[in-house]
Amino acid sequence: MKLSCLQKNLNSGLQTVERAIAKNSTLPILDNILLETDRGRLKCSATNLELAVIARVGSKIVKPGRITVPSRIISSLVGSLPNKKIDLEVKGNSLFVSSEGGKSKIKGLPAKDFPLIPTIKEKATMSIGAPVLKRALSQVVSSASVSESRPELSGVFWKVNGQDLRLVATDSYRLAEKKIFLREKQKEFSFILPLKTSNELVRLLTEREGEVSLSVDDNQAKFSFFGVEIISRLLDGSFPDYERIIPGSFKTEAVLNVSSFASNVKLASLFSGRVDEISLKFAKSSRSKFLEVKAASGEIGSQESKLAVNIKKGGSGNISLNHRYLLEGLSNILTDEVMFLMNDGGTPVMFRPYSEARRPKDKDFLYLIMPIRR
Amino acid sequence: MKLSCLQKNLNSGLQTVERAIAKNSTLPILDNILLETDRGRLKCSATNLELAVIARVGSKIVKPGRITVPSRIISSLVGSLPNKKIDLEVKGNSLFVSSEGGKSKIKGLPAKDFPLIPTIKEKATMSIGAPVLKRALSQVVSSASVSESRPELSGVFWKVNGQDLRLVATDSYRLAEKKIFLREKQKEFSFILPLKTSNELVRLLTEREGEVSLSVDDNQAKFSFFGVEIISRLLDGSFPDYERIIPGSFKTEAVLNVSSFASNVKLASLFSGRVDEISLKFAKSSRSKFLEVKAASGEIGSQESKLAVNIKKGGSGNISLNHRYLLEGLSNILTDEVMFLMNDGGTPVMFRPYSEARRPKDKDFLYLIMPIRR
Repeated sequence: MKLSCLQKNLNSGLQTVERAIAKNSTLPILDNILLETDRGRLKCSATNLELAVIARVGSKIVKPGRITVPSRIISSLVGSLPNKKIDLEVKGNSLFVSSEGGKSKIKGLPAKDFPLIPTIKEKATMSIGAPVLKRALSQVVSSASVSESRPELSGVFWKVNGQDLRLVATDSYRLAEKKIFLREKQKEFSFILPLKTSNELVRLLTEREGEVSLSVDDNQAKFSFFGVEIISRLLDGSFPDYERIIPGSFKTEAVLNVSSFASNVKLASLFSGRVDEISLKFAKSSRSKFLEVKAASGEIGSQESKLAVNIKKGGSGNISLNHRYLLEGLSNILTDEVMFLMNDGGTPVMFRPYSEARRPKDKDFLYLIMPIRR
Repeated sequence: MKLSCLQKNLNSGLQTVERAIAKNSTLPILDNILLETDRGRLKCSATNLELAVIARVGSKIVKPGRITVPSRIISSLVGSLPNKKIDLEVKGNSLFVSSEGGKSKIKGLPAKDFPLIPTIKEKATMSIGAPVLKRALSQVVSSASVSESRPELSGVFWKVNGQDLRLVATDSYRLAEKKIFLREKQKEFSFILPLKTSNELVRLLTEREGEVSLSVDDNQAKFSFFGVEIISRLLDGSFPDYERIIPGSFKTEAVLNVSSFASNVKLASLFSGRVDEISLKFAKSSRSKFLEVKAASGEIGSQESKLAVNIKKGGSGNISLNHRYLLEGLSNILTDEVMFLMNDGGTPVMFRPYSEARRPKDKDFLYLIMPIRR
């Protein structure tokens, strides 16, 4: 292999793929990035055997070939070089890098020992706008379970039906669902995308307009956009029938300012002690209605504050919630105001984006939290 | 105690003192900040028994008094409140905080149990410009030893004589010395200021023009500036006679661009393996002289680059250095160019700020590194 490319392009390609590498791999070659010439470009691949990321870098190829080199070394080296031309050449099992920054020799491992990246049988394919998918996935991914006790919850559930795509994640204490409207009708299919893949997708998708194409078969999914490919195993197991737990109606519907609500919850959270519990209570003075946000801990002390609220329906009762779940939900409300829906007792409370504007910044998102029972 | 003050001022006072608090203290009251009214202001104090920091906050005092409250709670609470008026009131062992952010009650501990902050006998006093001291101390402090094996090296040595103040730090592998010219003549005295106090001083001193007054006795030093006081124990033991190890003359004196030199050392450092060793060698082509920067590791590979150099004297030979010591030294050279001074063999190499300008950005700083012997 012998080629030249620009530092900026190679650096971007390496940064794209390097996060797929597992941290404490027992197989040394999994610490490496596979570099290979591919139809006039340099193809960079990394995999942890569950997730593979591929990026292509425009290059002037003198002689085709391939090699694998340690990710940490090649990424740090290229990241530190000036944005000028870089020459790469393979001799034996080493990669020689020359540029204005000098000459380096990086010891590698043979490309033939690098794991094969699986191909997809394309049972179903579709295309989604990149910024839309980035935003939608980032709104739900933080609700997925980080524990391994119920593997089917440690990912994002994709459910396609007609022109309707739903992304859902839950750790059984709270749940987030976002609907996306698809331009083309699809047959019905669903799968669970692992948490790590979902996070990498959010990271690698940019706000740049363009399409993401998705292909899935029974075990794998492939996302392609802007010369990048993400190939991932899917999670086994079936996602719970979450729609059953969404209450059909609510006694109270109230509109609150998101940032004031979040500030008051943050203040109360300092006093919630180890149980992370804060309580919300609707109250009224002579003139107007309020939401009281309270927390108390025997060790630390207590905090209470009041928040203006626009009651649409009902407007009484109180509930105890985990402040971390509440704050995470509010951080995914992209409108300035939020609709807070609750019943008395132990049923889930719901949060939805709310706006009086005709074209709101966000819609079709919902966030449920199971209350803390006493 | 009952008073009111502005959130911004109280927050700044709490941030100033909270870093004095030890991380894993066994005495609960050391996690607390002492709040007490003091001649029309609120005095905030924190101590880890070696270092105490005091800040004063302009307040409207209704009733004098004092209390101690957990640093983490009061700092997070005040930091999250809007920049408006805050009312503080002590009732029993609790502090009540009311503001636009609501009402909080923080459980405290009695002020009488807070350790006494020692007073200084003022054996010697002097005054130094705050920005000058901040810069000088930050140039040397990273060379102090972080190990406890030689306690007298785990701090910055202050040596005053006439109008000459020298700040020196070494971990026995490298040494930094900065001279400051004092406006007023002082009698001869010296002391070793602990690393943690030195770091806090660098952090709390601002670039704002003003004077720092220093008082010392045999065991303590006190720094006062802008309403802040830092009181610290001094280190026992005597600082080594470091001037003896500074070579009196050098065979080679060469001027290099600091940022190019640092970039080339960083590139080589990727290949230095676990021993952190890089080698520097003077070389010449037909037209000009170079410094070669090289590193090689059996496992990883190798790197070499060349750097333009302006030889003032000599200009041959080679030396091996620890790249971390070299980069840290270069980061404290505040001029664009650096004078690199070396002899052959095992004597220390020296780096000094260099500038052709009549009023250079920096002078009177030197940095020594012991070479790696083979």
